[in-house]
Amino acid sequence: MSQNEALLTLEGWFTVHDFRKINWEKWNAASAEERQAALDDLFTLMKGWEGNEAANEGSSAVYSILGHKADLVFMYLRPTLQELDEIKTAFNKSRFAAFTTTDYSYVSVVELSNYVNNPGEDPKANPHVRDRLYPVLPKWEHICFYPMNKKRDLQDNWYMLTMDERRQMMASHGMIGRKYAGKIKQIIGGSVGFDDWEWGVTLFAHDPLEFKHIIYEMRFDEVSARFGEFGNFLVGNHLDQEKLQNLFTV
Amino acid sequence: MSQNEALLTLEGWFTVHDFRKINWEKWNAASAEERQAALDDLFTLMKGWEGNEAANEGSSAVYSILGHKADLVFMYLRPTLQELDEIKTAFNKSRFAAFTTTDYSYVSVVELSNYVNNPGEDPKANPHVRDRLYPVLPKWEHICFYPMNKKRDLQDNWYMLTMDERRQMMASHGMIGRKYAGKIKQIIGGSVGFDDWEWGVTLFAHDPLEFKHIIYEMRFDEVSARFGEFGNFLVGNHLDQEKLQNLFTV
Amino acid sequence: MSQNEALLTLEGWFTVHDFRKINWEKWNAASAEERQAALDDLFTLMKGWEGNEAANEGSSAVYSILGHKADLVFMYLRPTLQELDEIKTAFNKSRFAAFTTTDYSYVSVVELSNYVNNPGEDPKANPHVRDRLYPVLPKWEHICFYPMNKKRDLQDNWYMLTMDERRQMMASHGMIGRKYAGKIKQIIGGSVGFDDWEWGVTLFAHDPLEFKHIIYEMRFDEVSARFGEFGNFLVGNHLDQEKLQNLFTV
Amino acid sequence: MSQNEALLTLEGWFTVHDFRKINWEKWNAASAEERQAALDDLFTLMKGWEGNEAANEGSSAVYSILGHKADLVFMYLRPTLQELDEIKTAFNKSRFAAFTTTDYSYVSVVELSNYVNNPGEDPKANPHVRDRLYPVLPKWEHICFYPMNKKRDLQDNWYMLTMDERRQMMASHGMIGRKYAGKIKQIIGGSVGFDDWEWGVTLFAHDPLEFKHIIYEMRFDEVSARFGEFGNFLVGNHLDQEKLQNLFTV
Amino acid sequence: MSQNEALLTLEGWFTVHDFRKINWEKWNAASAEERQAALDDLFTLMKGWEGNEAANEGSSAVYSILGHKADLVFMYLRPTLQELDEIKTAFNKSRFAAFTTTDYSYVSVVELSNYVNNPGEDPKANPHVRDRLYPVLPKWEHICFYPMNKKRDLQDNWYMLTMDERRQMMASHGMIGRKYAGKIKQIIGGSVGFDDWEWGVTLFAHDPLEFKHIIYEMRFDEVSARFGEFGNFLVGNHLDQEKLQNLFTV
Repeated sequence: MSQNEALLTLEGWFTVHDFRKINWEKWNAASAEERQAALDDLFTLMKGWEGNEAANEGSSAVYSILGHKADLVFMYLRPTLQELDEIKTAFNKSRFAAFTTTDYSYVSVVELSNYVNNPGEDPKANPHVRDRLYPVLPKWEHICFYPMNKKRDLQDNWYMLTMDERRQMMASHGMIGRKYAGKIKQIIGGSVGFDDWEWGVTLFAHDPLEFKHIIYEMRFDEVSARFGEFGNFLVGNHLDQEKLQNLFTV
Repeated sequence: MSQNEALLTLEGWFTVHDFRKINWEKWNAASAEERQAALDDLFTLMKGWEGNEAANEGSSAVYSILGHKADLVFMYLRPTLQELDEIKTAFNKSRFAAFTTTDYSYVSVVELSNYVNNPGEDPKANPHVRDRLYPVLPKWEHICFYPMNKKRDLQDNWYMLTMDERRQMMASHGMIGRKYAGKIKQIIGGSVGFDDWEWGVTLFAHDPLEFKHIIYEMRFDEVSARFGEFGNFLVGNHLDQEKLQNLFTV
Repeated sequence: MSQNEALLTLEGWFTVHDFRKINWEKWNAASAEERQAALDDLFTLMKGWEGNEAANEGSSAVYSILGHKADLVFMYLRPTLQELDEIKTAFNKSRFAAFTTTDYSYVSVVELSNYVNNPGEDPKANPHVRDRLYPVLPKWEHICFYPMNKKRDLQDNWYMLTMDERRQMMASHGMIGRKYAGKIKQIIGGSVGFDDWEWGVTLFAHDPLEFKHIIYEMRFDEVSARFGEFGNFLVGNHLDQEKLQNLFTV
Repeated sequence: MSQNEALLTLEGWFTVHDFRKINWEKWNAASAEERQAALDDLFTLMKGWEGNEAANEGSSAVYSILGHKADLVFMYLRPTLQELDEIKTAFNKSRFAAFTTTDYSYVSVVELSNYVNNPGEDPKANPHVRDRLYPVLPKWEHICFYPMNKKRDLQDNWYMLTMDERRQMMASHGMIGRKYAGKIKQIIGGSVGFDDWEWGVTLFAHDPLEFKHIIYEMRFDEVSARFGEFGNFLVGNHLDQEKLQNLFTV
Repeated sequence: MSQNEALLTLEGWFTVHDFRKINWEKWNAASAEERQAALDDLFTLMKGWEGNEAANEGSSAVYSILGHKADLVFMYLRPTLQELDEIKTAFNKSRFAAFTTTDYSYVSVVELSNYVNNPGEDPKANPHVRDRLYPVLPKWEHICFYPMNKKRDLQDNWYMLTMDERRQMMASHGMIGRKYAGKIKQIIGGSVGFDDWEWGVTLFAHDPLEFKHIIYEMRFDEVSARFGEFGNFLVGNHLDQEKLQNLFTV
């Protein structure tokens, strides 16, 4: 059996991160009734998403975002792109959507790379694998999202390396990741063919300094140092219905 | 006969991808009559495009787009740039257009590269060639669009290679493509002189994971790894009149 | 006499390409009277420009543009930057301008590079030279515009080559250009000190595929392959008063 | 004990720089009452921030910004990201916020890098260290902010250097910095995982030429010359309540 | 005495270039009284600036700008950043400002680089030096502005050269500049720490082709060819009160 056959990339749920800005001027100018009607629409949508999660038909999470790049992120996982389209349309028809704008989002699919499979086994029959491909998003305090590529820049070209070179570097990378078990929960979204970078990485943490520590430590690892190419970073705090109600009460 | 003479680039229909965002705030605020009038205008345009397709005077397709980059893409193929201009103008005069905005599009011409011709033959007399240059767009479930260049970066300069080097790499590339026959339908738009990248690639699939698989597999091929330069990726779901009616019903 | 002295760069008329988008929503909402008043202002301006052209005081052309980047391009050639400023101001004061917006333009001066002069001759006394520096823009069916630089990237640095190296490469380039005589009319605008790229190239053709053929063929030439750096490409169709009247009739 | 263990990166307060543009057209059109109500809201917020500073629960500063990139910057330091979120929300609910827009901000955490620790000591027990991690922002006349990375570009790759190479270069860098003691006060914000660059640097000075002198002198230092990659630079003047009142009196 | 000590960088007045677009739609819709009131405010500001210039407390100039990037540039020189802030605020409170928008500006300080000083002399006592650091802006017919860096790109890294190498290249550069004496007046703004590039260059000329000639000639000089990195170029025509009155009369 060749090494190629032994290494699988497994895919799970499709994912959209929908980053939204709040039009505060419009919100502040709205009447209390209009505002509550908008929030009611949002909470109805959220209840529906929770229903999907309970039925194991996907998962979702809502976080605030620090700084000017966005105010909120809605992260959705679903079995099909059609379902993600339906969520987008339902959101846009809600009374809440009109108080928001969007100029960033990310489309990907949950991915398990370099999975080493035992011959004759169906990896998706493995419950541990299923939990990683079809995860229930943790409701931890903090989120960090960034997209990334593997570089193809003259002699720093990841895709011209041999599989052994790539595997060794990824193994060293994985060893750093393992040190953060329990502190960081990571979801890798493969986005080749779906969005502008090759991967979208979502991290969850109780302590936001762990985002800095894991990414900084990995940056000295050859796979990141020579081959990692990073897009924008967004960081935020967990929101539930009560926190959203407070956030939007003027 | 030189190798240059044996290799042709054939061109078929001119193509515009028109990516549109829906102004949902305006749509939600419109009356039911205004909304239906706008949809009627859109459906009238679509009926006209279907007439062109039936008469073999072009082809067209409508898909949704995931994420914030666009909500809809209208893809048009026509024999001349003037006809594409007329479609643009008719669209902009419709009552539907006022509910949309656009900040992305792509202009190209359907292209068959490196076609090996038998001496004395008119390649456009070959029905298989005609089907690829003047295609009827498939109405498959999913679309993926991205523009690309061949790099000209110091020692990674595609245009400084010999024709033999280029032909060998493209042959290996084509072999990967052939593995996806029946799963992926690909339309190459040549856009040198027409738009900002050298090619615009449109893929259709029943299963959107095939977009990821074919592009990722090709990325390890030298022609992509060293010489491919990629723009934005957009992905979406097929729309027909019924789905559009549902999408726009509030 | 040194080679430097023998090679001249000659400059003719200053040039502005003014790319405009049509505010179709506003146009469609205007009354028939307002629309015709706007068109009348445009046609009055165009009549004035034709008067300048007849008096050999400049030249101008109007084309549509495909895709979202613009809807119209107004190309003006004039003896001075002050006259180009006056055209801009007059346009902006017209009732037509309010139905348009602009986010792209290009400022340059018609340029004849590497002109080989006979000692003792005034090149501008040569009628053939004068026709190229002070051209009457052809009203051919199609236009293509793009800006470009010569690269200065490590070992691919045009400006570090010797004059002989540059001259040989440009000669090979010119030989390709000559094959397109009668098919392509080219106007080179030098824009060092005037706009963001070193040159702005305007091509006119009866068949738009010729744009693709000449640019693609040249791209394999070392001067383009190693040293050409290209900006956005815009392509469109010729417009006269009648076609403009049709375009704007709703 | 390895060198790795001896070198710590310490983190203090989380930081947001919120750059705001004033909507002068709206401000000039508002009534005197509306304007004063907006300023009163701003001053109430500022009084709250001063209370936090007095209680050692954070620090903040307000400066004008020269040029078009922004008109004002609000810089906030707080123990948690949640508190920074609350400041953002309170600001956006104020009557002042509606007269401003934002398209730039920066999220980071105050950082002390390469701190050499004595074994067995808690560095945060050291008052000098605490003053640098939890600083009271100086109210000096001028501010300068810019984000930066360490380059990872082929042979100029900071993250592929040995720790000894990095330490020697940083030591030489620090010697330049020490020459500006009393002239420049510097706050380093680590932003790996939080924002788009690796660091955000804030400088304060009495004489703005010192910004130019220190940055220019450092640029010839190998760590900046070969490895520094810089984003936008913003510079401005200190504002207090009286200056804000004057700035906004029309 | 080392060579470092012998070479000074001298700084003069702080500088802001404020590039403005005219909102022609709003201007054309205003009443004659509103328009004249706006112009009166502008002319009052200009009279104040002329008073500063007469009192040797700064200098200023107003030019049109060709193309879409801006319509007007206001260039201000003042002894302090606070005075430049006051000009910005006064402009924004004027009735003229509401008819303009801005999305480009540049902040710098007039700079004399590589000045060779005689030991024991105060260079600012030299009247020729004072005239260059505190210049009265010429009211020549044309302006050209562009920002620039010295490259730090692998082996083309200006800041890794020895001082002797840099001095020799700059001397050759200066010899080209001297050929344009009387044709070009140049003001170098140092912007390290103040804006996004290292320098902002302002050229004045009677004949705008001189901008092209000097910049193009210098581009073959090693210091530009290998080390020059250039931003946007803006070019325009001189405006005085009478020309502004004409420009704005509809």
